[in-house]
Amino acid sequence: MPHDLPHRLGAEFLGTFWLVFGGCGSAIFAAQHLSDGQDTGLGIGFVGVALAFGLTVLTMVYAVGHVSGGHFNPAVTLGLAAGRRFEWKDVPAYICTQVVAGLVAGGVLYVIANGKAGFDASAGFAANGYAEHSPGGYTLAAVLIAEVLLTAFFLYIILGATDDRAPVGFAPLAIGLGLTLIHLISIPISNTSVNPARSTGVAFFQDGAAGQLWVFWLAPIVGALIAGVTYAAITGVDRQHLDVDGTAV
Amino acid sequence: MPHDLPHRLGAEFLGTFWLVFGGCGSAIFAAQHLSDGQDTGLGIGFVGVALAFGLTVLTMVYAVGHVSGGHFNPAVTLGLAAGRRFEWKDVPAYICTQVVAGLVAGGVLYVIANGKAGFDASAGFAANGYAEHSPGGYTLAAVLIAEVLLTAFFLYIILGATDDRAPVGFAPLAIGLGLTLIHLISIPISNTSVNPARSTGVAFFQDGAAGQLWVFWLAPIVGALIAGVTYAAITGVDRQHLDVDGTAV
Amino acid sequence: MPHDLPHRLGAEFLGTFWLVFGGCGSAIFAAQHLSDGQDTGLGIGFVGVALAFGLTVLTMVYAVGHVSGGHFNPAVTLGLAAGRRFEWKDVPAYICTQVVAGLVAGGVLYVIANGKAGFDASAGFAANGYAEHSPGGYTLAAVLIAEVLLTAFFLYIILGATDDRAPVGFAPLAIGLGLTLIHLISIPISNTSVNPARSTGVAFFQDGAAGQLWVFWLAPIVGALIAGVTYAAITGVDRQHLDVDGTAV
Amino acid sequence: MPHDLPHRLGAEFLGTFWLVFGGCGSAIFAAQHLSDGQDTGLGIGFVGVALAFGLTVLTMVYAVGHVSGGHFNPAVTLGLAAGRRFEWKDVPAYICTQVVAGLVAGGVLYVIANGKAGFDASAGFAANGYAEHSPGGYTLAAVLIAEVLLTAFFLYIILGATDDRAPVGFAPLAIGLGLTLIHLISIPISNTSVNPARSTGVAFFQDGAAGQLWVFWLAPIVGALIAGVTYAAITGVDRQHLDVDGTAV
Repeated sequence: MPHDLPHRLGAEFLGTFWLVFGGCGSAIFAAQHLSDGQDTGLGIGFVGVALAFGLTVLTMVYAVGHVSGGHFNPAVTLGLAAGRRFEWKDVPAYICTQVVAGLVAGGVLYVIANGKAGFDASAGFAANGYAEHSPGGYTLAAVLIAEVLLTAFFLYIILGATDDRAPVGFAPLAIGLGLTLIHLISIPISNTSVNPARSTGVAFFQDGAAGQLWVFWLAPIVGALIAGVTYAAITGVDRQHLDVDGTAV
Repeated sequence: MPHDLPHRLGAEFLGTFWLVFGGCGSAIFAAQHLSDGQDTGLGIGFVGVALAFGLTVLTMVYAVGHVSGGHFNPAVTLGLAAGRRFEWKDVPAYICTQVVAGLVAGGVLYVIANGKAGFDASAGFAANGYAEHSPGGYTLAAVLIAEVLLTAFFLYIILGATDDRAPVGFAPLAIGLGLTLIHLISIPISNTSVNPARSTGVAFFQDGAAGQLWVFWLAPIVGALIAGVTYAAITGVDRQHLDVDGTAV
Repeated sequence: MPHDLPHRLGAEFLGTFWLVFGGCGSAIFAAQHLSDGQDTGLGIGFVGVALAFGLTVLTMVYAVGHVSGGHFNPAVTLGLAAGRRFEWKDVPAYICTQVVAGLVAGGVLYVIANGKAGFDASAGFAANGYAEHSPGGYTLAAVLIAEVLLTAFFLYIILGATDDRAPVGFAPLAIGLGLTLIHLISIPISNTSVNPARSTGVAFFQDGAAGQLWVFWLAPIVGALIAGVTYAAITGVDRQHLDVDGTAV
Repeated sequence: MPHDLPHRLGAEFLGTFWLVFGGCGSAIFAAQHLSDGQDTGLGIGFVGVALAFGLTVLTMVYAVGHVSGGHFNPAVTLGLAAGRRFEWKDVPAYICTQVVAGLVAGGVLYVIANGKAGFDASAGFAANGYAEHSPGGYTLAAVLIAEVLLTAFFLYIILGATDDRAPVGFAPLAIGLGLTLIHLISIPISNTSVNPARSTGVAFFQDGAAGQLWVFWLAPIVGALIAGVTYAAITGVDRQHLDVDGTAV
């Protein structure tokens, strides 16, 4: 990897900020659009939010994936380390940077959102949750299964699309649109995390979200580790390489 | 093909599970989003479900297409064999794996869906159907014509985009978005199958679906075989190669 | 060009059939989804129809663009000939094939659509129109300006993205999504043609559409010819090459 | 750069015209679709408008990015100059061309829009605004922060995806979909500018928009300059090259 750690952390900061700002921001600002208290029908809905989350990753992995690998997500960093695509010694610095970037993004979102009269973050700020904080009222068990499984498949997509046998250059497309897909499935279940930094970034503004935050650290990390340790066995590859961006190794 | 059969079947399992879990899951969890029994307008609708089905294939063909070819669909496996892109001797193992993966995905969906109070799979579980089980009430004849024709074109897209004269690396994009397109056209007709494993995976949960399942084996396979045997004649190619993923042969 | 004319016409037939079947079919079957006469809100709307039209072209240009060039549109064929990318002697055979394919697609759509009780093609069959047949009631003048201008830009996209200085392999993506964009802009104006074969394929089923069909031959062809003869002057290229698909010349 | 200035300005004219015509046109014609004064639910909404803006850039950067670099935006031109990817001496000609193209597009949109009975541009013409002219009523401060930040990230995407270490050919995809993402986030805030030429092109038709136009010159340019001068420091690159299109340098 030709880059020194500070620049790689700079790239991770940009990418994770963008993921939380753009993904959660689209949900906060644009999912529903009211005029005089009436729904105009113009809002982007869950399909627009799903697209936004995916495009934050697609754009930033093309933009700075060649610097840092483009993780933007503590679960991805851990899963890639478990799959021997990333060095364990850099994991703490990556995760700290991602969490700080998520928190900064949450703060900037809060400032902008309060530029609209009557905005109340405590009533809704794109946080993840289960039971009464799940958009569709799904139980803790359902949320755990969904988050573990979806994060595992997110890692399978990442590990597979960056495998050096995969078509060159398309990994950011597959990974970004994979995140869109994951949101299309699961926004009603948990508001979709699969990313502890994303969950943490907005959890302290919305009532009840911080107390459920542990779920969105536990489940994504478990899912990512499962994928990291099983990918090679399932697909028959056993190699060690460290490059996760879309370019050939 | 450099991979041994067990790993190829592992890849087909992952891909087909993901197709049924993600495609049918988006329909079950997210197509319509109610709050206190009222439609919020936030649900992803048929356009989101169409996108989800296509992205399951796009992501998994980029991820593991280089292992197994990325069929995830018995009709695709048969159509490629008919078009001499896949060896007949591996067809049974592929199809069995795909069907099992679809059934496992259906089971996991059932578990998660029941994490929401009041969920009733028998009233709707993303199954395919005609007549009273068609979303728009289309007759058996209309459903048969549509499924044969759409599966045939799905195979033309696959056969053409993986032809070694086509741009390298773009086949998973074309094939995945082709499946999105097929859903944009035909969800109201049959809830869109073009894939017997997808139909089978969810058929045993929804009332009336299992009895109509034969249609969604017959029609996709007929369509796929038509395309497999006519592609070479239409486009003037007559070759035998076995690699269906996006990389050059 | 390594293919003989019959195979190229076979490819044009497949592509144009798919364009009309998929694009107009998505509009007819799925734009609005009613249940017991009530709008369910699940229909794909104009955004889904726009996506469908674009994906018909994206998929088929990847699939058979390497055979025929992937025109699927008489205006494109004429514009490419005017821009010296296609030989005039093959223009009549291409255009005849495209029109026949459009008519066959319209017929198959008619058969499937009548598989739903109460369907009435004369009241709406995705035809193009102006004034009382424009979805938004736009005048003939507005429709003419829009169709000329949009077809001209469609050709600029095609000529530019297939220029041998453009990135290799991405032309079908740019061209397909360009057609999606054109529909996002103009479905309310004219129901969007930019393609005389598409307009002709469905014009004879819907009341009043056949009498306005001349507009959707005239305007797209004028727009395409303008782009064909001005592209080289605007961009400073003056070359003759005949390959319009996404591969390098 | 192999092209002389007049052809590069021709390409910038085409691209900027298309951006304003397609992006603002989709908003004006298609965001909401009424029939007899009732919302049909068929309109493309903010998600369709976001997609349209992004696709104007995606299509035209593939089409003529190899001629001019594909800026289509004074803020992009300034940001690239600040990042030493574009020569300062060509900045004035690029910006003038972009503004003229935006104004011409606004004029053509006005002509077509008036082809619908009862259209009133002064009540709404896709202009950008804050406070009472913000779609969601956001304050000037919120609009300034959002526009600065979003334009900065737009430039980070452009600078990163055209870096010669990024995958070849994908820059137009990342940049176009990046603009889609920006619109998904911020249409309710400011109607989304990040582009002074786009704002200027439609500002003189809608009541109150011209008086707020200074914001949509100031904020995007400040954001673009911040990104241009910080990109190299963050990512550890320090180089000078002038090619912004998707092809390798």
